[in-house]
Amino acid sequence: MGVEEITLQALDTDEFIATQQAAIKTAAGDEAVINALSGGVDSSVVTMLAHRALGDQLKSYFIENGLMREGEPQQIVGWFADLGVKVEILDAQDKFFAALKGVTDPEEKRELGITQVFYKDVFAKLVQETGAKILLQGTNYTDVEETAAGVKRQHNVFEQIGIDPEEAFGYKVIEPIIQLRKPAVRAVARALGLPSEISERPPFPGPALCARVIGEVTRERIATVRKATVIVEEELKDTGAFQYLAILHDDMVTGLRNGERDFGHQIEVRCWESTDAVAGEPTELPFATLRKLADRITTEVPGVVSVTYNVTSKPPSCIEAV
Amino acid sequence: MGVEEITLQALDTDEFIATQQAAIKTAAGDEAVINALSGGVDSSVVTMLAHRALGDQLKSYFIENGLMREGEPQQIVGWFADLGVKVEILDAQDKFFAALKGVTDPEEKRELGITQVFYKDVFAKLVQETGAKILLQGTNYTDVEETAAGVKRQHNVFEQIGIDPEEAFGYKVIEPIIQLRKPAVRAVARALGLPSEISERPPFPGPALCARVIGEVTRERIATVRKATVIVEEELKDTGAFQYLAILHDDMVTGLRNGERDFGHQIEVRCWESTDAVAGEPTELPFATLRKLADRITTEVPGVVSVTYNVTSKPPSCIEAV
Repeated sequence: MGVEEITLQALDTDEFIATQQAAIKTAAGDEAVINALSGGVDSSVVTMLAHRALGDQLKSYFIENGLMREGEPQQIVGWFADLGVKVEILDAQDKFFAALKGVTDPEEKRELGITQVFYKDVFAKLVQETGAKILLQGTNYTDVEETAAGVKRQHNVFEQIGIDPEEAFGYKVIEPIIQLRKPAVRAVARALGLPSEISERPPFPGPALCARVIGEVTRERIATVRKATVIVEEELKDTGAFQYLAILHDDMVTGLRNGERDFGHQIEVRCWESTDAVAGEPTELPFATLRKLADRITTEVPGVVSVTYNVTSKPPSCIEAV
Repeated sequence: MGVEEITLQALDTDEFIATQQAAIKTAAGDEAVINALSGGVDSSVVTMLAHRALGDQLKSYFIENGLMREGEPQQIVGWFADLGVKVEILDAQDKFFAALKGVTDPEEKRELGITQVFYKDVFAKLVQETGAKILLQGTNYTDVEETAAGVKRQHNVFEQIGIDPEEAFGYKVIEPIIQLRKPAVRAVARALGLPSEISERPPFPGPALCARVIGEVTRERIATVRKATVIVEEELKDTGAFQYLAILHDDMVTGLRNGERDFGHQIEVRCWESTDAVAGEPTELPFATLRKLADRITTEVPGVVSVTYNVTSKPPSCIEAV
């Protein structure tokens, strides 16, 4: 695949940081560099490496696509402000929801909601406005592998899928952590002094809550899954699990409210034990926790009458449903 | 509602049996009586009561709608043969699948798949051929209540929904167990000497596996949920739970097979603690059981990549999804 892994065992974090900072500096030259921070550990490490290497030559943006979790944009920008890194919030919600209207196919959602809108519309415009020629990306080794295997079309592995980003989108991509899997990325995050909210942050998919909605993505459906996500994260944050998530199904199921039939929504909860997302097992949650999740979600999230817990391993399941 | 409950506490099974046999005999007079046996405890009790009251004056049929569980028609007919009751299997699969083609709305499925095809096409034809004017039905007290509450349109409570069966379908309906809830029906089943496979049989919905398929009901989708149902019943038969079921979702989810992306089906498992289906709690199954269910279903049922367990109480969920 042309990319060689640096395992957690082989990783010398200080050496890695020094090497990557130098590489970013060399690649950037005097060009303006822009960077999209999602707040996940991958893009956070890339932001911090680039901030150290480039200082004000780097412009970091948080793209508000309307698909993030409750309060997430403000929270992430706040953490980086505390670290002395200025991140600008760019409101692009209308563009994303317009592009996602009527789209139900998962691959098309990722393609439209992310690759096309994110890079072509939002980022290409930023590039024009800022004069930046270089974009930093948090592609990691698992993304490369899964894309090579055809499991998933990751949005940030242009080369592997035969797209030349300079030709297709007008800019050049630098991927400083492409040789690392998640545990190694977390080690680098700690060595960079990022707070544990970031270094230990459970993975969250590139297409954000878009990946948590089966069927059409609308503002209303995102609001539903966002509320369920708050509850799932509150209840499962102390489990030590690799990742936990709420998925809004498109299928409607029969429910009962105040003695009357209520045809409503179903939320599926997943909670994963994994080291690198390549394989995973569902977490053995206490039954009381599952019951509490169901009670809270069906009480606090309007329209939801049913909650399930996924009990399948990966493979044959994947971490995400979409 | 015009129907008064006989509670389990108040029930004298011998007296009830004697009263109902006499009532059936009186209502039938010299007319031919027909009866559809589904194999559930309700229709089994009705069949046995009527067999005792009427002997050969009763013709019992098992309607093979193509929607039953693996081997069910033969098994049920065999049990009744052992009891000296002759039950004829009537193959009506083509009629049901033709009527269900393209139908996705749950109420429409029940209406078309059951009320219309079952009564109008299949039963009306039987009535003509046999000359029967009277049909026995296993409507119970919970059906009456739920229909009155508008929770569900039960197929066998014509009067409650304002349909005159004689006018609408050409025959008269007798409902011997309309005053009993499930535990009382089981007590009568035992008193009638029905085998425990019948008297303790977990409830199974009138529309059969039709109610276990979200979205369109096709032969292929019924075959999928039928295979999953075999596994769920094998693994959960010793739990002592009130009811357990497999539901095939219409939503597709991302899976992984042999290292490659596999967009596949999801099966939802439900297992209920309940006494009368009016309210219920999910059974606290051992995690190893849930994992085994997922492993078996994703291995043995073609096309299924994901299995969930429902953790919601009724209300706000219902026992069945459709």
